[in-house]
Amino acid sequence: MKKIEVGVLGATGMVGQNFIRFLDGHPWFEVTWLGASDRSVGKPYHEAAAWRLEGDMPEAVARLTVQECKPETKAPKLVFSAMDASVATEIERAFAEAGHYVVSNSRNHRMEPDVPLLVPEINAAHLKLLEHQHKRGWKGAIVTNPNCSTVALTMGLAPLKPFGITQVIATTMQAVSGAGYPGVASFDIVGNVIPFIGGEEAKMESETLKILGEFAGDHIEFLPARVSSHCNRVPVLDGHTVTASVSLSRKATLQELIEAYDAFTAEPQKLKLPSAPPKPVLYLHAENRPQPRRDAWRDKGMTVTVGRLRTCAVLDYKFVCMAHNTIRGAAGAAVLNAELMVAQGYLK
Amino acid sequence: MKKIEVGVLGATGMVGQNFIRFLDGHPWFEVTWLGASDRSVGKPYHEAAAWRLEGDMPEAVARLTVQECKPETKAPKLVFSAMDASVATEIERAFAEAGHYVVSNSRNHRMEPDVPLLVPEINAAHLKLLEHQHKRGWKGAIVTNPNCSTVALTMGLAPLKPFGITQVIATTMQAVSGAGYPGVASFDIVGNVIPFIGGEEAKMESETLKILGEFAGDHIEFLPARVSSHCNRVPVLDGHTVTASVSLSRKATLQELIEAYDAFTAEPQKLKLPSAPPKPVLYLHAENRPQPRRDAWRDKGMTVTVGRLRTCAVLDYKFVCMAHNTIRGAAGAAVLNAELMVAQGYLK
Amino acid sequence: MKKIEVGVLGATGMVGQNFIRFLDGHPWFEVTWLGASDRSVGKPYHEAAAWRLEGDMPEAVARLTVQECKPETKAPKLVFSAMDASVATEIERAFAEAGHYVVSNSRNHRMEPDVPLLVPEINAAHLKLLEHQHKRGWKGAIVTNPNCSTVALTMGLAPLKPFGITQVIATTMQAVSGAGYPGVASFDIVGNVIPFIGGEEAKMESETLKILGEFAGDHIEFLPARVSSHCNRVPVLDGHTVTASVSLSRKATLQELIEAYDAFTAEPQKLKLPSAPPKPVLYLHAENRPQPRRDAWRDKGMTVTVGRLRTCAVLDYKFVCMAHNTIRGAAGAAVLNAELMVAQGYLK
Amino acid sequence: MKKIEVGVLGATGMVGQNFIRFLDGHPWFEVTWLGASDRSVGKPYHEAAAWRLEGDMPEAVARLTVQECKPETKAPKLVFSAMDASVATEIERAFAEAGHYVVSNSRNHRMEPDVPLLVPEINAAHLKLLEHQHKRGWKGAIVTNPNCSTVALTMGLAPLKPFGITQVIATTMQAVSGAGYPGVASFDIVGNVIPFIGGEEAKMESETLKILGEFAGDHIEFLPARVSSHCNRVPVLDGHTVTASVSLSRKATLQELIEAYDAFTAEPQKLKLPSAPPKPVLYLHAENRPQPRRDAWRDKGMTVTVGRLRTCAVLDYKFVCMAHNTIRGAAGAAVLNAELMVAQGYLK
Repeated sequence: MKKIEVGVLGATGMVGQNFIRFLDGHPWFEVTWLGASDRSVGKPYHEAAAWRLEGDMPEAVARLTVQECKPETKAPKLVFSAMDASVATEIERAFAEAGHYVVSNSRNHRMEPDVPLLVPEINAAHLKLLEHQHKRGWKGAIVTNPNCSTVALTMGLAPLKPFGITQVIATTMQAVSGAGYPGVASFDIVGNVIPFIGGEEAKMESETLKILGEFAGDHIEFLPARVSSHCNRVPVLDGHTVTASVSLSRKATLQELIEAYDAFTAEPQKLKLPSAPPKPVLYLHAENRPQPRRDAWRDKGMTVTVGRLRTCAVLDYKFVCMAHNTIRGAAGAAVLNAELMVAQGYLK
Repeated sequence: MKKIEVGVLGATGMVGQNFIRFLDGHPWFEVTWLGASDRSVGKPYHEAAAWRLEGDMPEAVARLTVQECKPETKAPKLVFSAMDASVATEIERAFAEAGHYVVSNSRNHRMEPDVPLLVPEINAAHLKLLEHQHKRGWKGAIVTNPNCSTVALTMGLAPLKPFGITQVIATTMQAVSGAGYPGVASFDIVGNVIPFIGGEEAKMESETLKILGEFAGDHIEFLPARVSSHCNRVPVLDGHTVTASVSLSRKATLQELIEAYDAFTAEPQKLKLPSAPPKPVLYLHAENRPQPRRDAWRDKGMTVTVGRLRTCAVLDYKFVCMAHNTIRGAAGAAVLNAELMVAQGYLK
Repeated sequence: MKKIEVGVLGATGMVGQNFIRFLDGHPWFEVTWLGASDRSVGKPYHEAAAWRLEGDMPEAVARLTVQECKPETKAPKLVFSAMDASVATEIERAFAEAGHYVVSNSRNHRMEPDVPLLVPEINAAHLKLLEHQHKRGWKGAIVTNPNCSTVALTMGLAPLKPFGITQVIATTMQAVSGAGYPGVASFDIVGNVIPFIGGEEAKMESETLKILGEFAGDHIEFLPARVSSHCNRVPVLDGHTVTASVSLSRKATLQELIEAYDAFTAEPQKLKLPSAPPKPVLYLHAENRPQPRRDAWRDKGMTVTVGRLRTCAVLDYKFVCMAHNTIRGAAGAAVLNAELMVAQGYLK
Repeated sequence: MKKIEVGVLGATGMVGQNFIRFLDGHPWFEVTWLGASDRSVGKPYHEAAAWRLEGDMPEAVARLTVQECKPETKAPKLVFSAMDASVATEIERAFAEAGHYVVSNSRNHRMEPDVPLLVPEINAAHLKLLEHQHKRGWKGAIVTNPNCSTVALTMGLAPLKPFGITQVIATTMQAVSGAGYPGVASFDIVGNVIPFIGGEEAKMESETLKILGEFAGDHIEFLPARVSSHCNRVPVLDGHTVTASVSLSRKATLQELIEAYDAFTAEPQKLKLPSAPPKPVLYLHAENRPQPRRDAWRDKGMTVTVGRLRTCAVLDYKFVCMAHNTIRGAAGAAVLNAELMVAQGYLK
C-alpha cells in the first residue's frame, strides 16, 4: 500500500518535532512536506530545526526543504498543524479553504461550533461536523484535538460518562514539555511547583464539556456539567497527572466503575487504527499509580492510565489519571484523529 | 532571663534535627536533653546523629549525650516529641504521666478527645483541654500539632472560617522532606510524581475538622464540614503546596475574602510569641504564587502563603496555599505551641 | 531454534529487575529460573518483587516461583548474577563449582586473576581465562562485567587504545539508578550533587586497567597506565556521564582520533550478537552531547556515546562519554557477555 | 556613619537582582541609583523588574526610578555593573572615564592588562593596577571579579599556592542560576546533564592564571601553570561544584595541605570587611562534602567549601570545591571587591 503523504505546519517547534518523531515509521502516513516561519524557509530541516528530543532526527525528514506555510507550496492534502496559536488562525483557514484537511493541535479553532474537538475514543461521531465546514466555502476542513491536560482528564472521565457526570474538580501536575521550547525556565522549576499556567484552566473547563458532549446535527450539545480546574507545573519531563473528584447522577458502586474502566474500548480499537492503543484507558490497581515517569510511555505514549478510584467525601468519587502530554495530548492525538478520518473515508 | 530547658524525644531523626535547628538561638528555650533509641544512648549527639540539614549541627547540642527515652533520665519539664509513630504512644504517655509537658509532632495522640490538636493562630482556646488530661492521672500533659499537609490547608482556610466553611476538596503537592529520612527513594521521584502517600489523606480529612472546631468544655466540637483530599509527592525539597476548592455558607465577594486574608491575625501575634510570624497567613497577589522554593522560608518558615483566590465552577471559591512542611508543619509548629503554653502560664 | 534457559540470581532487586526487563523477548535466552533471598523463596515473582521499572513486569516471569540461591534447585546451566556484593562470593562460587556458567554483575570476582572482566567490544580474548578456572576444581565458571561507571569510561577509551593510553583523569556524574533501591534518599539529591560514591573511584581506577589489558596465558597483563577518578552522584535517572582527559603515547591529530571513533567496531558486531549495537561507541558531533536523558537509551541502552573531543591543556586530549548504567553498565553488559560465550561455544 | 551611595548597572536582570538582594541591609552601602535598558528607563524598579529570587524585592529599592545607563544621570561614584556582556564594554568605560568606580561582574574587561581581576582573599595587591587606568584618561576605574566557576576553583586552589601549583584539571557541575534568566530551558535540564557551557572553559583556563598571578608594576605576571577544564550544567539551583586534580612543585603531605586550608585567611578577614566570611575557604572533613544544596549558603553564600583532599594517581592531589555562584561568584564577589577598595582608600 502506498503511504499517504502528509505535511507538518510549524515543523521546527517542539510540537512539530513531536509530530515528526511520532510519524517516523508510521504504516499509513509519510511526512513529505514541512512548513515553518520565514526564518526557516528554504533550508533543509536539519539546518532549520535544532532537534530537542531523544535520539536523532529521522533521516528522511532531515533532508526535506522547509516551505512557506502557504497552500500553494504543493503541500499534501493532509497536513498536521503544530502552529503557534499566535499565527494558526489565518494559516489553518487558508489551508482548509484551499482543500486541505488540517488536523490541528492548535487551540485556535477548537471551540468553533462547526469544528470537531476530536478524541476518537470519546466522540468519533463529532467528525460529522465536517460537512458543515463546507458552508464556510472551504474545500477542505479543520479538525482539532484538545489541550494536553484536557486529554488526560476527558479520557479519565470517558468510561464514567454512562453514569452521568455532573461535577468535576480537577488539579493538574503538568510536565515541562507541555510548555514548548524554551518554555519554563529551569531557574523557575528546579525543586519547585508553579501553581499557574496561563489560560490552561479556562481551556480545561470549556473543552471538556464539548468533548464529552453529543453531536446534534450542526453543532455539539455540551455535556451539562460543571468543571473546575487547578493547573500546576511540576518538574516532570513528560506526562500530565490529574487528580479528579466527580459527581455522578447515576449512583454506582466502586466495583461497577472499575468494571467500566476495564471494559472501556472504542471506535479506534474496533477499527484497529495504527496508533490506537489496545487499552485506551488502563486502570492500574497498584495503590501508587499512575506515575508520569513510569506510565507515560505505555503503548508509545497513547494509553491513558487511571488509578486510585475511591469515594470522595465531598463529591461522589475521586481518582488519578495521567497522559503523555506531547503524545496522547498532542502529536499522537492528532495522528489518531487523522487515522480515524482516513478510516471513515474523509480523505478520499 | 534564664532560658527554659527543653528536651527532644527522637532527637536523631529528621524531625528531631529540625527541632534542634529551629531551637538554635531560641530566645526562651535551650535544648539541654536529647532522647533517642538504644542505638544512640550514651553517645554524644554528633556521633549518634548524621546531620542532614544545611550547614552544621549546632555546637552546644552536638556535645550533649543522648539519653534513653524515659522520664527518669532527668529530662526537663518541657519536651518536644519527634518520636516515630511506631513508638510514640507509650513513651509520650510515660512522660506526661511523670509530669512532663510533651509537645508532640507525632500523630499518635492527635485525635484523642482530651488532647489539643493545636495551631495557635486558629484554636488557641483548645489548650483548655489540658486540664482534662489530669483525669488520666497524669501530672503533665500532651499537646499535638497537625500533620504537615493539614497545617498548610487549615491555615489557608482559617481566614475563611467566619464565612462558614462547609465543603473542601484539596490536592497536595508535597515535598520530599515530609517523608523523613531516607524517606522517598530518589529512583522513585526524580522527574516524577507519586500520587499516593500512605495514611495522609485520612489525616488531612479528619484533623482539619478538629482543628477548625470549637472548644466545648471537655472536648472539641468538630467543624461540621466535609473535607476530601488527594495527596501527592513531588520532587520539591521543602514546602507543601495545596490547591483547594471550598464552599462557604455565607456568600461573600472575592474582595471580602481577600480582605479577610489581609486582616487575619491571631493570639500568637498579639502575644508577640518569638516564633510567631508577623503575618501568619500572607496573601500574595502575583498570579503564579505561592511557590514552595520561593516562599517556604518566609519568616524562618513560619508564614503560610496563599494566592490565586478565584471563583470555582463547582464549589464557591478556589485558591492555592503553601507551608514549609518541616517548620510550620512540624518543628516550628510544636515550638509555637510551647511558646503559647508558656505565655498562658501552663509551664509554671 | 529452542531458546536457552537462563536463571537470575538476586532476581528481586533493581539489577535483577533490569535483567528481567532486558531479557524480555530476547531471541536466544528465556528466563525460566529465579533465585532470591529466603524472604522471597517459594513465592511467585510478582509477589516477591515490587516492580520498580517503567511499565509492567513481564508476564511469563511474573508467574515463576522464586527459588533458593543454591545450585541444587534445578537452575539452568547459564545464570546471571545480580547478587548483592555482601553475599555474592560464596553463592557464585557454589554455582560455578556445580557446573554453572555464572555471568555476574557483582564486583566480588572481577579482579581475580583467572576471572574475565569482560567487555566484548574491548577484550573478547579475555574469555580464554575461563579454562584456568577449571584448576579451581570448578565444572562451570564465572565471568564478570565491570562497574557501571567503568563501562562508560573504558568504552570511551577503547577506540583510543591503539594510540597508547598512558594517563587518564576522569570525573563522573552518575545517575541515581546506579545506587540500587532504595539507594540515594531523595532528600539528599533533589537539586544537589553528592561528590562521593563509596568504593567507586577505586573500582574505576583498577578495573579500567584490567579491561584494557592483554590476555597473557593464565592472567591479564594490565594496561600500563595511570587512572584517577572523581565520582559524583547527580539528580539524573539513567546514564552515567564521564568527562575524561587522557595522555597518549603516540601523538595523533583530533581528526585521526575522531576517525578512530567512527571506525570502531568489534567482535560482537562481527558476530551480530543480538544485543550488540550497530555502533558500540557513537561519536556525536553536536557541541553539547552526549546527554544522559537524550542519549542513554540509544539502541536499547547498549550504545555508548562520546563527544566534545578536543585538546587538553594539561594532558593531550579531553572528551565526554556516557553510557546507560543499568543497561550497558549492568544487565545488558552481562547479557552481551553471555551472548559472546554462546557464540564462542562455551555453553555447549 | 552615613552610608555610601551605590548604583547598579543592569539592575533588572538576574545578576542585578542578586546585587540588590545582597546589598539589602549592607552596613556601608546603600543602593540609591539603578540603571537598565531603555525598556525599563523611567519606571519604578518594581514595575521594571520581575523579581525572581526568594521572598520579596527590598522595598526601598522597589521605589527607585530606573535610569539610563549613562554617567550624566547623577549616578553615585561607586557603581556595580551587572551589565550583559553584549553591552558592558562601552557603558563601563563611559562611567570610568567620567570618574566612577565601576565594580563589574561582566567578563568584558577582565583580561585587560591594567584591570584587576580581583578576589580579595587571593590577590588584594592587584588593586594597585588601578593607578595605571588613569593613563587611559579615566578619572575613575574598572575593577572586575571572575567568572562564577573560576571563583570556586581559584578559592579552592588559593591555600595550595604556596606549594607551587603547576597543573590543574578541573570538571565543573554548575547550577542553573549561573545561566541568567530565562537561561537553561527546563526541558533541557530536568533529569539531565549538559556537558557544555559556551565560553566557560576558556574563561576558567585563562582567568585562573591571572587571579593567581603576581602584581608586577603595570601588569600581572600570570601564574606559570596549565589549567584544563570541563564545564557541565546540572539540575542544581545554586552552587557550582568543581572536582580538581593538581600538580604541585613543592611536594607536601596531605596533612600539610589540610593544615594550609585550615590556616588560610587573608586581607578581607584582617580588615574585617562586612562581607568577608570568617573562613573564606572552609575545609569540610565529612567524606561526602561539600554539596551545593547544603553548603552553598554558608555565611550568606560567601564561604567557599572544600573537601575530599586525597592523592591523585596522575597528578599529585585531588579535591572537591564548591562556591555559591551568584553570591561568592558574582554579586557578593563584587561587593567584597568594593569593600576592599573602600578600606584601602580608593573611593575617597
